Amino acid sequence: MTASDSANGSPIGHDSLERPLIALAMGDPAGISPELTARLVASDAVLAAARLVVIGDPRVLADGAAVAGVSLDAEEISESEVPACVARPALLQAGRLDPVDVHRGVATGEGGAFALANYRAALDLAAAGRVDAVCYTPFNKAAMKLAEPAYGDDIVFTAATLGHTGDASEFNVLGRLWNARVTSHIPLSAVAAHITEASVLRGIRLTTASLRAAGIAAQRIAVAALNPHAGDGGNFGREEIDEIGPAVERARRDGTAVEGPFPSDTVFLRARGGHFDAVLTMYHDQGQIAMKLMGFDRGVTLLGGFGFPICTPAHGTAYEIAGQGVANAGAAINAVLLAAEMAKSSVEQGEISTTG
Amino acid sequence: MTASDSANGSPIGHDSLERPLIALAMGDPAGISPELTARLVASDAVLAAARLVVIGDPRVLADGAAVAGVSLDAEEISESEVPACVARPALLQAGRLDPVDVHRGVATGEGGAFALANYRAALDLAAAGRVDAVCYTPFNKAAMKLAEPAYGDDIVFTAATLGHTGDASEFNVLGRLWNARVTSHIPLSAVAAHITEASVLRGIRLTTASLRAAGIAAQRIAVAALNPHAGDGGNFGREEIDEIGPAVERARRDGTAVEGPFPSDTVFLRARGGHFDAVLTMYHDQGQIAMKLMGFDRGVTLLGGFGFPICTPAHGTAYEIAGQGVANAGAAINAVLLAAEMAKSSVEQGEISTTG
Repeated sequence: MTASDSANGSPIGHDSLERPLIALAMGDPAGISPELTARLVASDAVLAAARLVVIGDPRVLADGAAVAGVSLDAEEISESEVPACVARPALLQAGRLDPVDVHRGVATGEGGAFALANYRAALDLAAAGRVDAVCYTPFNKAAMKLAEPAYGDDIVFTAATLGHTGDASEFNVLGRLWNARVTSHIPLSAVAAHITEASVLRGIRLTTASLRAAGIAAQRIAVAALNPHAGDGGNFGREEIDEIGPAVERARRDGTAVEGPFPSDTVFLRARGGHFDAVLTMYHDQGQIAMKLMGFDRGVTLLGGFGFPICTPAHGTAYEIAGQGVANAGAAINAVLLAAEMAKSSVEQGEISTTG
Repeated sequence: MTASDSANGSPIGHDSLERPLIALAMGDPAGISPELTARLVASDAVLAAARLVVIGDPRVLADGAAVAGVSLDAEEISESEVPACVARPALLQAGRLDPVDVHRGVATGEGGAFALANYRAALDLAAAGRVDAVCYTPFNKAAMKLAEPAYGDDIVFTAATLGHTGDASEFNVLGRLWNARVTSHIPLSAVAAHITEASVLRGIRLTTASLRAAGIAAQRIAVAALNPHAGDGGNFGREEIDEIGPAVERARRDGTAVEGPFPSDTVFLRARGGHFDAVLTMYHDQGQIAMKLMGFDRGVTLLGGFGFPICTPAHGTAYEIAGQGVANAGAAINAVLLAAEMAKSSVEQGEISTTG
């Protein structure tokens, strides 16, 4: 293959089918992001699955490598060299930050600006088709807001940066189980008004598309109910009857293997038992309570719907252990592996539209 | 002790301090209730902790004993003999049902009427101070509604039967962890309007009283937030700031060891780790998702606030395995043991008012 093969959805270069090219944006520098980034660059599992362009500041990465106790085999490149010179891990400066200005465990505007600059640069590369996927190490939301007061959440920021107006959703992935949600960062009092046949149907379709993008062909999707006991036949709310049920029926008529609505206090028991590949929940905590109890902090957050995979470990910045060299890189490694798997599937399937 | 000692809260008879007297109402006859009831009567652990008056039909109990493969050492008594003649398990007829009319796995009005009659008789005995506590084997809600269309849930029915107008709440107990909730069987769209400083404070106080009634003196109570990320400082809802937080502060000023509001997607991780004795949740599924994932079906449901303990296994009627003799009686045994423990604590502490 050559770069001219890009029309089939693989714009990146000679070995992308074997190893997709991933832009890895360094997250909040005051937490465990620097050491996690270093561990990813030093991970045989990661390098066997993906080529990396780390986006950050070489000094912060070197600091992370020192904390992690790993040595890095990476070369600094300029932005114009992507994707040409990335056979081995490459390092591209975006956010500029001297490690002496990083105060571990403290959310600062400088740290937030660093993470935002890196993430923006990664998104730009992906939007231009110069990398196959984006990953990032954990952000600190307070720092993001100090740097950019309008910062809402990762989905909103990503959509605004990309000028994306289609559907998009955060997916939580733990092992083989996916969780998506119809509503997310809104007050609980506002949830019910957002549960409509149309919004649930969009959630089902986005879940279907994202599972397919991850190479999961035979999908079994469960839809959670909104109300206790799934509304108990209308006694405790009618959304199951009026909105969620019709959306499930419509999706089934369209050929989607989706079931529900199921009472949300048992659907995850069945999902944990392997009955489903994905659970679509109606609101944030409905899924997060379950996924975190099942160990989701070891899992991966995927921002789905943007046309290329965007993955990050589900855990946060872990300020309390930053700089100690004890951070577990398992979830971060899984994030890169999922992004790589999805990028490969995308190439094999041709371009995926997740906004239809 | 003699029966004249009843003024201190122990009205029951000569050995109640050692073994409280529990009215055990037989639940839905079409499920595993008959065999569970028989197993309880035959359980050494149960009989070491409590004296039992089984309320039901001797023929249905005999049928359950045959299914369970246990032989029963119980005597039939009349209602006027309670509590005098209950040194060994006693059997009091209330609901009248011939086992040939029971169709296993089918919810019927006859089955519901049987369970309701037994439960009413048990509540009457407890309200009259003639037993120390009430337990029941699982009800089938559809059958209850067939028998009594106005039947809402166990709390509402119990309050109506007892003429109880104070606070009452369902508690879920799994091992050492308790879960109570401020709202329960209402639509999710109605939850936020019910979360007020007053309702949360009532929930905290009822939790405190119920833990104390169970002999848990050094209490650590966590209060869950309503909104995602506990409202994120007001960005995703203000109930944490305006209602829940002030209720927690008020309770703390009153000397209660209560903390929160905590994001509901991590509070159960901490509770599972032993940080709390109880979690007060704001709505039904918030607690049920977590408790069921942690194995709550092995746990106990307590109806708290009625002045005497009312306990039942957390699981349901298990129609799918009824009559096979394979039902696990662990949760039912735990229900009786918890009721017995609470009845003993109540005697030792004097009368508990949970409605203050």
